[in-house]
Amino acid sequence: MMPSDKTILLVPAPRKVADIFTENQLERLRALGELRIHDDAPPTQAEFEALAPRLKILIGQIDMPESRLRMAPHLRAIFNVEGNFLPNIDYGCAMSRGVRILNISPVFAEPVAEAALGMAIDLARGISRSDRYFREGTEKYGLDANRGAYSLRQQNVGFIGFGDLGRAIVPLLAPFHPLVKVHDPWLSREYIRSFGYEAATLEAVLTSSKIVFVVAGVTSENQGFLGREAFASMQAGASLVLVSRAGVVDFEAMLDVAATGHIRVATDVFPVEPLPLDHRARRADSLLLSPHQAGALNATLAGIGAMVTSDAELISRGLPPCLCKVAQPETVALLRSKPVDKS
Amino acid sequence: MMPSDKTILLVPAPRKVADIFTENQLERLRALGELRIHDDAPPTQAEFEALAPRLKILIGQIDMPESRLRMAPHLRAIFNVEGNFLPNIDYGCAMSRGVRILNISPVFAEPVAEAALGMAIDLARGISRSDRYFREGTEKYGLDANRGAYSLRQQNVGFIGFGDLGRAIVPLLAPFHPLVKVHDPWLSREYIRSFGYEAATLEAVLTSSKIVFVVAGVTSENQGFLGREAFASMQAGASLVLVSRAGVVDFEAMLDVAATGHIRVATDVFPVEPLPLDHRARRADSLLLSPHQAGALNATLAGIGAMVTSDAELISRGLPPCLCKVAQPETVALLRSKPVDKS
Amino acid sequence: MMPSDKTILLVPAPRKVADIFTENQLERLRALGELRIHDDAPPTQAEFEALAPRLKILIGQIDMPESRLRMAPHLRAIFNVEGNFLPNIDYGCAMSRGVRILNISPVFAEPVAEAALGMAIDLARGISRSDRYFREGTEKYGLDANRGAYSLRQQNVGFIGFGDLGRAIVPLLAPFHPLVKVHDPWLSREYIRSFGYEAATLEAVLTSSKIVFVVAGVTSENQGFLGREAFASMQAGASLVLVSRAGVVDFEAMLDVAATGHIRVATDVFPVEPLPLDHRARRADSLLLSPHQAGALNATLAGIGAMVTSDAELISRGLPPCLCKVAQPETVALLRSKPVDKS
Amino acid sequence: MMPSDKTILLVPAPRKVADIFTENQLERLRALGELRIHDDAPPTQAEFEALAPRLKILIGQIDMPESRLRMAPHLRAIFNVEGNFLPNIDYGCAMSRGVRILNISPVFAEPVAEAALGMAIDLARGISRSDRYFREGTEKYGLDANRGAYSLRQQNVGFIGFGDLGRAIVPLLAPFHPLVKVHDPWLSREYIRSFGYEAATLEAVLTSSKIVFVVAGVTSENQGFLGREAFASMQAGASLVLVSRAGVVDFEAMLDVAATGHIRVATDVFPVEPLPLDHRARRADSLLLSPHQAGALNATLAGIGAMVTSDAELISRGLPPCLCKVAQPETVALLRSKPVDKS
Repeated sequence: MMPSDKTILLVPAPRKVADIFTENQLERLRALGELRIHDDAPPTQAEFEALAPRLKILIGQIDMPESRLRMAPHLRAIFNVEGNFLPNIDYGCAMSRGVRILNISPVFAEPVAEAALGMAIDLARGISRSDRYFREGTEKYGLDANRGAYSLRQQNVGFIGFGDLGRAIVPLLAPFHPLVKVHDPWLSREYIRSFGYEAATLEAVLTSSKIVFVVAGVTSENQGFLGREAFASMQAGASLVLVSRAGVVDFEAMLDVAATGHIRVATDVFPVEPLPLDHRARRADSLLLSPHQAGALNATLAGIGAMVTSDAELISRGLPPCLCKVAQPETVALLRSKPVDKS
Repeated sequence: MMPSDKTILLVPAPRKVADIFTENQLERLRALGELRIHDDAPPTQAEFEALAPRLKILIGQIDMPESRLRMAPHLRAIFNVEGNFLPNIDYGCAMSRGVRILNISPVFAEPVAEAALGMAIDLARGISRSDRYFREGTEKYGLDANRGAYSLRQQNVGFIGFGDLGRAIVPLLAPFHPLVKVHDPWLSREYIRSFGYEAATLEAVLTSSKIVFVVAGVTSENQGFLGREAFASMQAGASLVLVSRAGVVDFEAMLDVAATGHIRVATDVFPVEPLPLDHRARRADSLLLSPHQAGALNATLAGIGAMVTSDAELISRGLPPCLCKVAQPETVALLRSKPVDKS
Repeated sequence: MMPSDKTILLVPAPRKVADIFTENQLERLRALGELRIHDDAPPTQAEFEALAPRLKILIGQIDMPESRLRMAPHLRAIFNVEGNFLPNIDYGCAMSRGVRILNISPVFAEPVAEAALGMAIDLARGISRSDRYFREGTEKYGLDANRGAYSLRQQNVGFIGFGDLGRAIVPLLAPFHPLVKVHDPWLSREYIRSFGYEAATLEAVLTSSKIVFVVAGVTSENQGFLGREAFASMQAGASLVLVSRAGVVDFEAMLDVAATGHIRVATDVFPVEPLPLDHRARRADSLLLSPHQAGALNATLAGIGAMVTSDAELISRGLPPCLCKVAQPETVALLRSKPVDKS
Repeated sequence: MMPSDKTILLVPAPRKVADIFTENQLERLRALGELRIHDDAPPTQAEFEALAPRLKILIGQIDMPESRLRMAPHLRAIFNVEGNFLPNIDYGCAMSRGVRILNISPVFAEPVAEAALGMAIDLARGISRSDRYFREGTEKYGLDANRGAYSLRQQNVGFIGFGDLGRAIVPLLAPFHPLVKVHDPWLSREYIRSFGYEAATLEAVLTSSKIVFVVAGVTSENQGFLGREAFASMQAGASLVLVSRAGVVDFEAMLDVAATGHIRVATDVFPVEPLPLDHRARRADSLLLSPHQAGALNATLAGIGAMVTSDAELISRGLPPCLCKVAQPETVALLRSKPVDKS
């Protein structure tokens, strides 16, 4: 490899290089420029200033205000390896300078979709609840075990939000031939129809669905938008699967309505993690508790390196990226409000 | 409807007519002949003898020895509404007389397949176990919760048995693009290949699969054929989903191997139901316990009437049935050894 | 291989052994018994009588009246390798003796389905017609070429008949999300609904469909049942794809209605083959002519041996066949009226 | 509707408003601002200057140099309704000002994909050629008609280019379970693998595929990149389906190799349209000629209005578009070299 006049800066915190990149992928990055890795601490301002003039690609979520962007005239891309867009970048400045801002959130879509399907079947068919009753010695058998059980097949299913994650659930549901309504105010009805689904109001999704997947991200506009009335408006016995962010629901209201037995809830996310040991959610009968594990497979982390490396190669060749999520000028300001992420 | 010279005898025990037939379906049966319903007790021998000369279709699993078959010269079909083939019919005699023997077991295939998928995701991703830990206050989060977790995606999957139930799982797995091996000694490799799957020995299925679906029925030849060595030969961390009959496994050996943590097991069937309250299975960590509920949805029972009615209509018109399982002369003697059934 | 006391008789006429069996398949047949091949002429009556006492499996469509069946007490199966059920077997006698009668018609389903899809797209989009106009120098371009063209996508599609062939078309159409009506008087509405399709009258299929697949076999009851009124009742511009038997349509009426431009027709079958050189069909503008080629690929013939061999193995082991079509007592008498076949 | 201070300028040439927008869609556009339609002639410079200060959305492909962009401070989006990116826009200037540049080319993907599938089956199975022989009186039947025919099933298939159009072919091929190689230098191997396909060199695609779909657009870099050697390197009897642009092939070389019978070719595009009447392509036996009709259905044009209207609504609400193709800064300069278009 020839010495390069370009620098690739890799600052994986809070992850570690070895968790997300293989040796082969690092080698591929080295082929794009001089690879500078800061695995333990971010570069100091002095270190940053020293490398900025040759900085081509930044992998990591260090602060990038206008002042730093201006120091890096050859910068082409910034990859967030947690999976979100943070408020520590001056997006407007970066975009006007032609810098791509990307994150690896699509890597979580498939594992979370699989877990969401497992949770939906669990709630509909009473799988974990029957296992619990068995352990308590109170199980019933056959038809008696299945009071209130239903199948996903040809069921009314609703999506609240329909981004990468919602779309990853689509093929998994296809064999069940569901009738699907989607509420996502950022998408057009024509786009939703292109999946064979129907665009609907939030109210229509809630009241007509037997199974509701909550896959909307938190934005500065939709904090806690699913509250007591929303849950109460759902059908008796309906299932709610929450796998995006706890911030989109009024968690206490959700527990209240589940406690009445009106709805069943599976949640992978919590307002505080770890959840306090004495939290009532731990004793709720209509609840399936998943400790933020839906996306965090080892194989998922391994996919991050592949995604970043291949898009970095494309960008280095002057081509658009094709796997990472690209920050859109219209929405990045709304999305970047929430620094937490899938593990 | 004109008075008919043919009789349809409906003896639904151990089910009830109202559980499996709608009024509309009963009306359709009446259009085929005089419908005689014995909902509480089977007909006495005298009652049977009185109606036998005009008997055209028998729905129910009363004894049908050669003597009774000979009394019913117009009999065309016998439908078992439990879902199996019992030894109380003289199959050879019936078949030589052109009597179709059918059962409604295909109605269970889809609900059991859905539950089996839910169980497979549960074992692979640790869904019910994490819920249990949550309730015990010992849950971990994110990657820490996922030690040993894996995805179904592009996984090595094995089937032991590949009848109606196995084939109903095929479309549900398709979105995960698994690599599938099938062991079913009753099927040809060419047939299995027609699904894009590979026919394999029992040993190959056990040792190469991360997830094994046991969907073989019990026959007079395969009682307990999955024993200690079989389970020990599986991969560390592999999942076994047992949804057909407890009789095909050595249940204690299965629990022993699961207790070591070598494999994870989900079972919908048990050697004795209800399981004794002090049975160690109730405390096993690597076990998912399902109280024979995989097939017994109310909607499943409702499907029985549709299946029987539509096939009875076809048979009355001199056409072959198309939904019920038809007893095959080669295998019915092997299958009819086990009188228990789903629900 | 030990000398066997059982005989497999292989009389492939009108095919040749080498066209349908590989050496490996013949070896597998030899493992089932002594393989006697009559590739050029059928066995004489004396030859037949000599081997009948040990005859276990007959592959070929020689005469099998009751007298011959009685000579062969160990006969278990008769395979027709043309693809039909001929009237030269005493079916009632054979069935009462437990002899399976089978044919290899399912091997034609996939290649014919593929050709039928190609023809349907051709008619809908005007592919071969535009090619013809190009060669005549009269082609138009773009929108002007597409007057009357339509897509299969979400189209109203009808099936007349829904056996192996119809069911092989189902997965090929799935990506187009058609709305399908099926007319098949031998099937129940519940069975048709299990494919997500709607059972309908012949009239409803004809009048509501933009594309009609005629995939019904000829029986003693349905000769020419699609006549002038049927074709006239179709929608203006609708497409008819005939890939089963010419005998189910009034061919001249079909040409008449196509000649008016009211419908478009693709046909793989003809009342007489070869079609007379001066036949008006050769000059029809709304017609796509296919010389009985939809099923007759070399790869299709090669599949016959695999199908027969694997089912012969199962039957020899006392198991039911799983790939060939099995003669049903109710319908074989209706089906066996037509000795012609694909190839 | 309140008077608006924003203007939507609609200049559909070379299309007509009535061909691509319904009244309902125009009403939806009017809800976004004052709708100014120039159906017959583009606005004069004076007219443009008068409305520029309030111009919010431009639908149409009029010249937009920097000078005009600067006059329109509120401009948010420019929609090309032909389906391409033309060189008459200053893309760099527009993008730095936050103006989205879009085209409706995705609307052509599905109809072209369907036609491409029809052409592929046609070439593989000899559909239009047999029809032609029939009309000439030289047809053969059955196996004799099928010399050299093959099925798409489990076939080696190659894609040259893999944009919207290639991806629209994917689901149509899925039922045939092909083994697919893709050559697209703008995409990463990881992205291609996410479809279950293999990224490959151009040489590997050409030499290993039985069916090759050419779906690459013309760029300033790939004019005529498929030449004599490329076609000669294909397998004997292989099929080439060209549905993107004639400019990517050396058309004469393609005809030469097809004339030898080495490959079969279907083409929807030609170097000159209409093709001269005496062009040898009109007499070629191994050629399927399609007069640029693959995408130009009336229903396709009707889809343009839906696509533009719904994306215009999203952009007006400050959201990213989701149906139109968005010009990417990296590639638009390469793509905008070719002003011709479908239909």
